[in-house]
Amino acid sequence: MKLLLVNPNVTGAIAEVMAAEARRSASPGTEIEVALAGFGTLYIENRVEAAIAAHAVLDVLAEKGAGCHAAIVAAFGDPGVFAAKELMEIPVVGVSEAAFLFAYTQGKRYSIVCLTERLRAWYMECAEEHGLSGRMASARAIPVAVPDITTAKADLVAELTEQCRLAVEQDGAEVVILGGGPTAGLAREIADRVPVPLIDPVACAVKLAESLVNLELRPPEKGSFARPSPKPARGLSPALAKLIDRG
Amino acid sequence: MKLLLVNPNVTGAIAEVMAAEARRSASPGTEIEVALAGFGTLYIENRVEAAIAAHAVLDVLAEKGAGCHAAIVAAFGDPGVFAAKELMEIPVVGVSEAAFLFAYTQGKRYSIVCLTERLRAWYMECAEEHGLSGRMASARAIPVAVPDITTAKADLVAELTEQCRLAVEQDGAEVVILGGGPTAGLAREIADRVPVPLIDPVACAVKLAESLVNLELRPPEKGSFARPSPKPARGLSPALAKLIDRG
Amino acid sequence: MKLLLVNPNVTGAIAEVMAAEARRSASPGTEIEVALAGFGTLYIENRVEAAIAAHAVLDVLAEKGAGCHAAIVAAFGDPGVFAAKELMEIPVVGVSEAAFLFAYTQGKRYSIVCLTERLRAWYMECAEEHGLSGRMASARAIPVAVPDITTAKADLVAELTEQCRLAVEQDGAEVVILGGGPTAGLAREIADRVPVPLIDPVACAVKLAESLVNLELRPPEKGSFARPSPKPARGLSPALAKLIDRG
Amino acid sequence: MKLLLVNPNVTGAIAEVMAAEARRSASPGTEIEVALAGFGTLYIENRVEAAIAAHAVLDVLAEKGAGCHAAIVAAFGDPGVFAAKELMEIPVVGVSEAAFLFAYTQGKRYSIVCLTERLRAWYMECAEEHGLSGRMASARAIPVAVPDITTAKADLVAELTEQCRLAVEQDGAEVVILGGGPTAGLAREIADRVPVPLIDPVACAVKLAESLVNLELRPPEKGSFARPSPKPARGLSPALAKLIDRG
Amino acid sequence: MKLLLVNPNVTGAIAEVMAAEARRSASPGTEIEVALAGFGTLYIENRVEAAIAAHAVLDVLAEKGAGCHAAIVAAFGDPGVFAAKELMEIPVVGVSEAAFLFAYTQGKRYSIVCLTERLRAWYMECAEEHGLSGRMASARAIPVAVPDITTAKADLVAELTEQCRLAVEQDGAEVVILGGGPTAGLAREIADRVPVPLIDPVACAVKLAESLVNLELRPPEKGSFARPSPKPARGLSPALAKLIDRG
Amino acid sequence: MKLLLVNPNVTGAIAEVMAAEARRSASPGTEIEVALAGFGTLYIENRVEAAIAAHAVLDVLAEKGAGCHAAIVAAFGDPGVFAAKELMEIPVVGVSEAAFLFAYTQGKRYSIVCLTERLRAWYMECAEEHGLSGRMASARAIPVAVPDITTAKADLVAELTEQCRLAVEQDGAEVVILGGGPTAGLAREIADRVPVPLIDPVACAVKLAESLVNLELRPPEKGSFARPSPKPARGLSPALAKLIDRG
Repeated sequence: MKLLLVNPNVTGAIAEVMAAEARRSASPGTEIEVALAGFGTLYIENRVEAAIAAHAVLDVLAEKGAGCHAAIVAAFGDPGVFAAKELMEIPVVGVSEAAFLFAYTQGKRYSIVCLTERLRAWYMECAEEHGLSGRMASARAIPVAVPDITTAKADLVAELTEQCRLAVEQDGAEVVILGGGPTAGLAREIADRVPVPLIDPVACAVKLAESLVNLELRPPEKGSFARPSPKPARGLSPALAKLIDRG
Repeated sequence: MKLLLVNPNVTGAIAEVMAAEARRSASPGTEIEVALAGFGTLYIENRVEAAIAAHAVLDVLAEKGAGCHAAIVAAFGDPGVFAAKELMEIPVVGVSEAAFLFAYTQGKRYSIVCLTERLRAWYMECAEEHGLSGRMASARAIPVAVPDITTAKADLVAELTEQCRLAVEQDGAEVVILGGGPTAGLAREIADRVPVPLIDPVACAVKLAESLVNLELRPPEKGSFARPSPKPARGLSPALAKLIDRG
Repeated sequence: MKLLLVNPNVTGAIAEVMAAEARRSASPGTEIEVALAGFGTLYIENRVEAAIAAHAVLDVLAEKGAGCHAAIVAAFGDPGVFAAKELMEIPVVGVSEAAFLFAYTQGKRYSIVCLTERLRAWYMECAEEHGLSGRMASARAIPVAVPDITTAKADLVAELTEQCRLAVEQDGAEVVILGGGPTAGLAREIADRVPVPLIDPVACAVKLAESLVNLELRPPEKGSFARPSPKPARGLSPALAKLIDRG
Repeated sequence: MKLLLVNPNVTGAIAEVMAAEARRSASPGTEIEVALAGFGTLYIENRVEAAIAAHAVLDVLAEKGAGCHAAIVAAFGDPGVFAAKELMEIPVVGVSEAAFLFAYTQGKRYSIVCLTERLRAWYMECAEEHGLSGRMASARAIPVAVPDITTAKADLVAELTEQCRLAVEQDGAEVVILGGGPTAGLAREIADRVPVPLIDPVACAVKLAESLVNLELRPPEKGSFARPSPKPARGLSPALAKLIDRG
Repeated sequence: MKLLLVNPNVTGAIAEVMAAEARRSASPGTEIEVALAGFGTLYIENRVEAAIAAHAVLDVLAEKGAGCHAAIVAAFGDPGVFAAKELMEIPVVGVSEAAFLFAYTQGKRYSIVCLTERLRAWYMECAEEHGLSGRMASARAIPVAVPDITTAKADLVAELTEQCRLAVEQDGAEVVILGGGPTAGLAREIADRVPVPLIDPVACAVKLAESLVNLELRPPEKGSFARPSPKPARGLSPALAKLIDRG
Repeated sequence: MKLLLVNPNVTGAIAEVMAAEARRSASPGTEIEVALAGFGTLYIENRVEAAIAAHAVLDVLAEKGAGCHAAIVAAFGDPGVFAAKELMEIPVVGVSEAAFLFAYTQGKRYSIVCLTERLRAWYMECAEEHGLSGRMASARAIPVAVPDITTAKADLVAELTEQCRLAVEQDGAEVVILGGGPTAGLAREIADRVPVPLIDPVACAVKLAESLVNLELRPPEKGSFARPSPKPARGLSPALAKLIDRG
């Protein structure tokens, strides 16, 4: 099967970090196709950037989704993921959504560890939107500045590991999610240094997307995720306009 | 003072309905300036359209916000309103936000009455995002199709009034919000036909925006609504790119 | 318009502090009339004093409400405010209610800073009664005794400012409410020393009351805030007895 | 032991109905002393009347509490019960509080059945104040007017029984509380006509008060129920003023 | 009346500690009969042991319940208590359930203090199952190992008292529950060293069971606590099999 | 990989229905091994039967778990699943847990449709225990008796389909879970007769278990799911006693 991994920011290096972990986690026969947002910022940290990214995700899906069996919105925070589920006929999952769901199988309370303070509010709101914040113990950021987001995973491994440990010891986390695209793949590297299960959102999203493809659930005809009626649009990319104004 | 009323869809006729009510509700000396989204759909009903509208709202604010004392995101559902609060130095309020807040002063349970079934999910999610869904009694749509959204207020007054009454009698609503831009101004027309206070979101947003301008609250330097650090952006409108990458 | 500011305790000096801020915040043409509780304690800090104050507030409203366009229950904690909304035909708002509602427009989590430890429980219960405790980050009291409640605002400015800062740094508050009548007006004085918006409950209550007067919402005929049926009463002040046993 | 049953309204006939059930439920050696509110209304149905009653309850307790081992606030809705717990050195329980607590032992969802529509809001708010509304299935009132509140128990037995049954069948109640002083004692009469446990609030309050007396829990020195510091009061009854301004 | 105190573990010494407190708390005429689990572990600390204990409790009740007026599940955590309520015709209460309910009468927030860290998760889940976790301030364990669980009450009195104090000072507890069978009876010993009411779960369970026997509530015929229809069972003890497959 | 499907009741025919769906849903290379409870009832419907089943599940896992890569607790209601996660070193998932998690990816509100009224309470409590009840729209049972539980899937297809439709139309479900072992495999048969995604718990559990095996998460050393310390046990099966008292 073919999974479309949509990177909602415009930085190819982050997309490659995530794609590498996605390929490591994929089952035999699963192909990962990567697509970058056509507009937006280098790295998404706040509601402004996430709002723009949501639109960009829909654009990418409209243009590149055809021929894929499922899509992954690959920025922790899941910009536009509910709109994408509504828009597309194939399953769409967010990396946060997948991380939260697998975290629920591992313990009663989870924490998120991420790179910058600013991300925390967005991540907490994302958990609320998914209805999965009830078991969040904390969202922790490392207390140092990130010199280069594309190499943060290697540069800041000690700081991130320390926050994982503190989440367990001080916040009572029974499972820890490493939130954020740039740290994809880190969980398997530091698993033996943290005393509880460590969740890699990209790996989880690949397993969730594969599972949904295999389950072959029927798409909704009713409810708020049924595909909307066609409607004329103005000023959108041709692919997105066509998908919204099907006909 | 000057208030910028941002219509997040591309339909001028709906903007005019809202602007008329905004001007009726404004205090002496308050000027209402109207701006339309530069891209999007004719009328916002679902998460896809709301996601695109959120980006469009930021675009409009970046281009037209200068010189205004406050801004109103004028589609019930408040697309992009939290991002807009983060982006702008002036107060930004959503019409839903204002309606919910004033509804809280009038009763213990409120209902929303709106034009189409599809809007209900979006409106309920909006109330959740504001942390103001705890007192929602119901969200009701009229059970007939809307032939022309721009004249719906006049065409469907009986159906809307009936849903308001049912919200009181069957759902226990102690206050009813008439949700949706096209019905702005209807509350004052049918107030005597509904036995509880009727909330007009546009009117409330004008009073809330005026109040915030008068209160002169200081903008946040800390927390998730402090203005984000500048960051290079790609593919955005010049005004929005400039505001995001200040410098 | 004429707003009746009801001070639920019997201390005129506190009423004057609040009245001064109310007048500073009022729009041109708004007149502030002040009334003191006819019985009760010097300063309300606990449920016993608040219960007595609730009765006293109804008494004052019955006696002085005629001719006013709206009333403000002016003790943080809002003693009797829901009963007052039920009793009166004019809009009645509490200073806590107003503070919470405006706080919701400024950030995702608010803290209350107040003068004495004992007040915290009452203030937290007040937020719950309004259905607005979901976003409370903390309620903090200064850790020193208050020698004179009527001059506390001037005497304890450093201690209060410090608690505001701690609410932001330690509790994650994105907006801070200065709770309590004796500190009315302090927010504007120390706004530049706290890095998030500072809410003055009296100022907010004035804007909220003015807005409600301008919105001219119809009073409820149904629901729990519709005026109760007349009923004989015994042992009450003539004005209150008359209002309860209308006829 | 001696239990003081405080009737927060001014109607002796209702107090007698409750006292009779209290005496039927009391253990050997428990004496029930009855006291009426010194001021207020004939029957409490709304927030206005409950606010006045809360003050009246404190007054009665201050005057009659000495020499009693515990007190019962005997109007469903528990006017002033939290203030009373704070004020008194003896245990104070509300009839609602007792009913909710015993209901929790009998099923996962409870309903309240009461005499008038207006009572429902007050009763639901009471459950919220106690933190015991999470398992409420419904609050139902009989759909007919109550000609005489003092004989309602006998006059309306069929209507009350029917609502109990509907609470089970339509609302999923697993236990039903007969709310309201005038129906005290009815539960034992109609128990065989309702297919789930029926809770009599007065009976429960007697058992709860007796239990608390026997448990001899130490009174709090810290927290919001520790007795408040003495404070001068104005315009109160001598007994209440003395209790508040101990010294 | 005769109360059956079921000790869900297999350690007679713990049962004796609890029985002693039960007898101290019982009213004149109440007889306490003690029964031990027929299988299980020495002391219950986790979900594995609690799951086995739940079955064991049902077994004991089936064998020893006849002739008793009520039963007490006497391990904090209440293993099997909801199943037991469903199975038995007599009232069944858990010691946790009783402790939570009485704690609700004493303050707005309660803490649990217990012997081992591992117990905390189980105790918190128990409060959630009862729908009574909303007012929990914290669950604290002493920070030292327990050398001998049967003498822990005497050996660790200082450590337990210290955690009670910390619950008040640091967590805001207004009432503290001493959780766990081995510490039954300790509350009355250290009451004067903790500044808030101290709850003994066994004592509360005795008062609750006595009250329920006296209230003579009718058993449910409908709802999830009505006795299940008979059903063949395999591999169970004769007494339990007979009770499940009545006939 | 080898998955152990544990049927918590003693009816082989139900196990076979579930095993068939498990095998249909399994990926190539996944082997399904089936094990029956050694004791218990024919079909689990209430808390009594579920409590006994929880013990039986631990027994089966202790005896048959060795050599398996993951285990599935295969009765909707997940008896003993949290204890099983604690006890075992391999991943353990419940069919309810899996159904809820996949339902969260498909819509904002889910309903459960099941065979008997009595199951509803257990299923709702199961969702609460998983922290996944926040999005439950309803739990519906068919309104007719089930003549033979082992052939219910074929006999009652029309009644079950009708309840699925009603869940969508009346309760607002956006996704429906067919709860209960005997109906495993039905979802794929009636998917085209229900207008929203239909969830088969057994199929979901297989995908979830496979995913967890592939993710190779490290087991917890801390928190409430770390394996408990060894402890002597009495009266248990040799395999379970050995696993609890490792050494």
